[in-house]
Amino acid sequence: MIHKNTPEEMIEVIRKAPKVALFSHVSPDGDCIGSMLAIGLALEKMGKEVSLYNPNPVPSYLAFLPGSSRISQALPSPQAKVLLFVDCTDLGRVNMSRSDIPEDSTVLNLDHHISNLFFGDFNWVDVHASSVGELAVTFINRLGVEFDVDMATNLYTAIVTDSGCFEYSNTTAQTHRLTADLLDIGVDLSLIHHNIFNQKPLAQIRLLQCALNGLEILADGQLAIMTLSAEDFQKSGAEQEMSEGLVNHARSIAGVEVAVLLKELSPHEIKGGLRSNLWLNVNEIAALFGGGGHQRAAGCTLRIPMAEAKQSITTAVEEALRIGRDH
Amino acid sequence: MIHKNTPEEMIEVIRKAPKVALFSHVSPDGDCIGSMLAIGLALEKMGKEVSLYNPNPVPSYLAFLPGSSRISQALPSPQAKVLLFVDCTDLGRVNMSRSDIPEDSTVLNLDHHISNLFFGDFNWVDVHASSVGELAVTFINRLGVEFDVDMATNLYTAIVTDSGCFEYSNTTAQTHRLTADLLDIGVDLSLIHHNIFNQKPLAQIRLLQCALNGLEILADGQLAIMTLSAEDFQKSGAEQEMSEGLVNHARSIAGVEVAVLLKELSPHEIKGGLRSNLWLNVNEIAALFGGGGHQRAAGCTLRIPMAEAKQSITTAVEEALRIGRDH
Repeated sequence: MIHKNTPEEMIEVIRKAPKVALFSHVSPDGDCIGSMLAIGLALEKMGKEVSLYNPNPVPSYLAFLPGSSRISQALPSPQAKVLLFVDCTDLGRVNMSRSDIPEDSTVLNLDHHISNLFFGDFNWVDVHASSVGELAVTFINRLGVEFDVDMATNLYTAIVTDSGCFEYSNTTAQTHRLTADLLDIGVDLSLIHHNIFNQKPLAQIRLLQCALNGLEILADGQLAIMTLSAEDFQKSGAEQEMSEGLVNHARSIAGVEVAVLLKELSPHEIKGGLRSNLWLNVNEIAALFGGGGHQRAAGCTLRIPMAEAKQSITTAVEEALRIGRDH
Repeated sequence: MIHKNTPEEMIEVIRKAPKVALFSHVSPDGDCIGSMLAIGLALEKMGKEVSLYNPNPVPSYLAFLPGSSRISQALPSPQAKVLLFVDCTDLGRVNMSRSDIPEDSTVLNLDHHISNLFFGDFNWVDVHASSVGELAVTFINRLGVEFDVDMATNLYTAIVTDSGCFEYSNTTAQTHRLTADLLDIGVDLSLIHHNIFNQKPLAQIRLLQCALNGLEILADGQLAIMTLSAEDFQKSGAEQEMSEGLVNHARSIAGVEVAVLLKELSPHEIKGGLRSNLWLNVNEIAALFGGGGHQRAAGCTLRIPMAEAKQSITTAVEEALRIGRDH
């Protein structure tokens, strides 16, 4: 039987377990790593044996997190009787399936994603939490473990990462109250912010340079469009994923409603990222090209050369801006 | 007699006053405008007559703040009997002197700057507050006025501005707790963040482009230096002050300890801004060139051509990095 949102029962299972194995998702971020580490440290304070797993290496910008060097890329063997999955919508997020888990084990699922599959025997899924970090604070509180600076550093990192430095709309009064409790314990804000936000690869800055060199402002200043050719990636030494977030530079310009970044993956494969500021539904524009997403952030792939892709997207955005204004 | 840090007495003066004139400083920012507006709205809720003054026009990115259109650039005439100065270290910050104020008036001074001159008859100066916004929340609480969304929007803007989106080291547990109270009232995070952070002049983005095109990484990746020529400013259409913050792009590169931005004000006048990340004292480097500032942020002016200035600063930074490492 699946138990949905049963924090009390989950805490009871943890209390009784002498050993707990913790798991966090592929392409790890500050939220899953910080939350897993904080809970792991808390469980050790209770005298439990803890293992920490992530399928990938911890990104270098998170290496400052207390305990991070103990995270293993090898699955615990033998598998523990109690497994806690942190920030994972499903077992696929840790490259696992139910057959990897012994029948008599208990699976605990702590998450905040709306797409969570309730794959655990006990599940604590709160979609109103900005981050699993928030849930981890409550989790540790309920276990009755006293917070220390190492735990607070991990938890602050988790929350600040997934709330976008308290900017994203998932940030609530509760996010700030829990953060206040962590600051009371004493976290080094400068150290954390330096590690999380000031460790950009030089290649990413070079890619921003290329993007800005190709920036065009159209539609009476309402559309800002940037392009990155395959050559731009090559000469910057940048990986595809380093273009993440660059579109926000275009979006931050006064008067801009729609920002677009077009990336050339190959000569006839252009990936488009669209963002809007206040009112335009870019999901509808992305849908015109077989893509999708959300009203303010969407994406699509166009199997045509860059110049054509740019023209097509520009025309579609200009049309949408015109219709929107006329309403 | 000067009363230092007398919140209770200040509140009493306000309670008894039928009319209050509010003042905020030149080159206004989100903290002084937001705090002044919130207090003004609260006083009006109490049935008082309120005037709002700033020596400069409200910046366009703050025009969304409820009540901002009522801020006047004309001094109240006749001058009120009770004057409240918000976020001002001294009367000079509002282009006023004591002779502009009638003898029988009461001057109230609400501020958080360590350099405050305690120029009021009653002063409430808390240097531990991240922002005057924090003090304004407490101020309004003590007046017993119920918060509304307009007041909360102004106060959130004040706090988020001066705490650097909760990143600066002046951010405390109290900052987050007061912010939580404001979110409970219901502020539109997207709207506020869009207005404050996504309204950059295009010229500033063009200036960033120029700065990145001139970015050099030296000293084994520890020094990132950018230059902006007079021509760069001209072709970007940017004002001098728009270069503010650009040096942080250089500082955000992994491995960089020192970031420098050199601006050509005229052919023999180069202004240098220096930032360090973790350990190097850039104040000492700026001092070598007759400048100064803080350990992690300092500036200086060099009266030599750009190429020479760049060479001199680079040599000084490289030397400091070498000495620091050898210790």
